Amino acid sequence: MKKARVAYDGIIHEASEASDGRLQLDDGRYVASDEVVWLPPVIPGTIFALGLNYADHASELAFQAPKEPLVFLKGPNTLIGHNSSTRRPGDVSYMHYECELAVVIGKSGKDIAKEEAYDYVAGYSVANDYAFRDYLENYYRPNLRVKNRDGCTPLGPWLVDASDVADPMNLAITTYVNGVKTQEGNTRDMIFTIADLISYLSSFLTLQAGDLILTGTPHGTVDTAVGDEVVTEIEGIGRLKNTVSGDEAYGRETTSTTKATIER
Amino acid sequence: MKKARVAYDGIIHEASEASDGRLQLDDGRYVASDEVVWLPPVIPGTIFALGLNYADHASELAFQAPKEPLVFLKGPNTLIGHNSSTRRPGDVSYMHYECELAVVIGKSGKDIAKEEAYDYVAGYSVANDYAFRDYLENYYRPNLRVKNRDGCTPLGPWLVDASDVADPMNLAITTYVNGVKTQEGNTRDMIFTIADLISYLSSFLTLQAGDLILTGTPHGTVDTAVGDEVVTEIEGIGRLKNTVSGDEAYGRETTSTTKATIER
Repeated sequence: MKKARVAYDGIIHEASEASDGRLQLDDGRYVASDEVVWLPPVIPGTIFALGLNYADHASELAFQAPKEPLVFLKGPNTLIGHNSSTRRPGDVSYMHYECELAVVIGKSGKDIAKEEAYDYVAGYSVANDYAFRDYLENYYRPNLRVKNRDGCTPLGPWLVDASDVADPMNLAITTYVNGVKTQEGNTRDMIFTIADLISYLSSFLTLQAGDLILTGTPHGTVDTAVGDEVVTEIEGIGRLKNTVSGDEAYGRETTSTTKATIER
Repeated sequence: MKKARVAYDGIIHEASEASDGRLQLDDGRYVASDEVVWLPPVIPGTIFALGLNYADHASELAFQAPKEPLVFLKGPNTLIGHNSSTRRPGDVSYMHYECELAVVIGKSGKDIAKEEAYDYVAGYSVANDYAFRDYLENYYRPNLRVKNRDGCTPLGPWLVDASDVADPMNLAITTYVNGVKTQEGNTRDMIFTIADLISYLSSFLTLQAGDLILTGTPHGTVDTAVGDEVVTEIEGIGRLKNTVSGDEAYGRETTSTTKATIER
C-alpha cells in the first residue's frame, strides 16, 4: 500500500494511487496528480539524517568512511512535499541534491536489536536532502546553513508500507536533473544498514513512532541551478520531483542564476 | 504572567502561581506543586541550542570563542519538565549540567532585524541542557550521544511572558548541586545576544512560533552523580529542579554510581 498526504478542496486528505494513475482521496473522489498540493507523507517527530553513509560518496568528498554512524538532526521547517520548489539563495554557490531512502519509524522502542529492527519500521519514502555546501565547514556535524534551510528536504510522494518492500537494502537510487541521469547507486552500498542505524540510535535514545531516518546518499551529487527540475527516484518507493527556484520567487532580487549556471 | 503546563486529575492544564505559592489550574482549582506532574511549559517546534556562547565557558573548555553562533538542534525526546529525573547511563563518566536561558519564539519571521528581534519573543524559561561529555568528539557540532538522550533537557517550571522581563540580557544564572552553589554567571556575558541569535537564525530559515532557543551556559559546569539534586535558576524566570537517576530506575543494572562519585 502506498499512501500520500495531499491538500485538496480545503482540507488535507490521505490519498492512494488509482489504477489509472490518478489519486483516489480518502473520501472516494478521484483527482489528477497536479490538482492537489502534495505534502510530506508523514508528520515527523525527530528527523535524523546521515552523513557519509555510502563509501563512494565519502571518497567523492575526500573523506574517510566513518567508524560509527554520523547522525545529525533536521528541523521540521526543512520538509516539503512532492512537486514543490526549493529556494536557492543568491549568495550560495553550491546547492547539491542528495537522493536518500527515508525510513519511517512505526512504533517506539529503546535498545532495539538489529535482528528486530524491521519490526519498528512503518514504511519508506524518498527524500532529497539538499546541501548548501558553501557552509560545509565540518562535514561530520554540518552547520545548519548547510542542511536546515526552509524546504530544503523534499519528501515523498508516497509512504510505502514496509510489508510491500521485499528488500529495502537492495533498491536502485537514481537522480535526474532536467531529464538527464546524474546519480546512480543502490541501497546495498550503505556503510551502516537500516538495521544498524535503528540499533545504534535506539542504544542511546528512544526511537518514536513518526521519527524519520534519512539514510544518506551515494556518489554523484552535483550542483543545481535556478530553474532545474530534479527528480530523485528509489526503486519501488517513488519518484520525487522538485524544482529549484531563485530569490525573486521570495520577493528578493537575485544575482545567482548566471553564476550558478557558469559554475556547474 | 508566569504559566506552567501540568498534568493533574487525568488531563493537562495550564497553571499559574497563586499568592500562597500553590498552583491555580485553568479550571480554578488550587493544588500543591508536588501534586502535579510538571511538563515542559511549551510544546516545541525546532529546538535550537548554542555551543560556547559564553566566553568564560569556552575558555574553561579550552576552546576559542566562536566567530559566528555555533547552533545545533535537539530532538523533542530531550525535553522533560520540572521536578523530573534524568538518567545517567552507567557507561558515562561525565554528565555536566548546563543552566541556560531558554527563549520561546512567539510569532513566525524571516530576516528579522536585530532591532526588531524582541517583537518575536513570547517569553522565557529555564533549561538545563545536560551534556554527556564522554562523547564530545567535536564540540562545534556535538554528537547526538552528547546532547540528544531522552529527557536530558529539563525545561521550566514556567513560561514567563516577555513583557514581564525588563532586561533578559541582565539576569543572574545560578546552579546548585545538592544545595551547594556550583555555577554563577549572568546573561549579559553571552557572546551572541538574544537579538543576535534571532537575527542570525532567521537570516537563513524561518523562525516559527513555538521554536526554542537555548542560549548557552556560562563557566562552572561540573559532573553530577546518581542521586544528585540539580537546581538551575535564572533570576526572575524560575528555579528548575531535576534529579539524576541511575540505570536501575530504567530496569538495568548499574556500575556507575561509585565511579561517578569518585571522579567528581
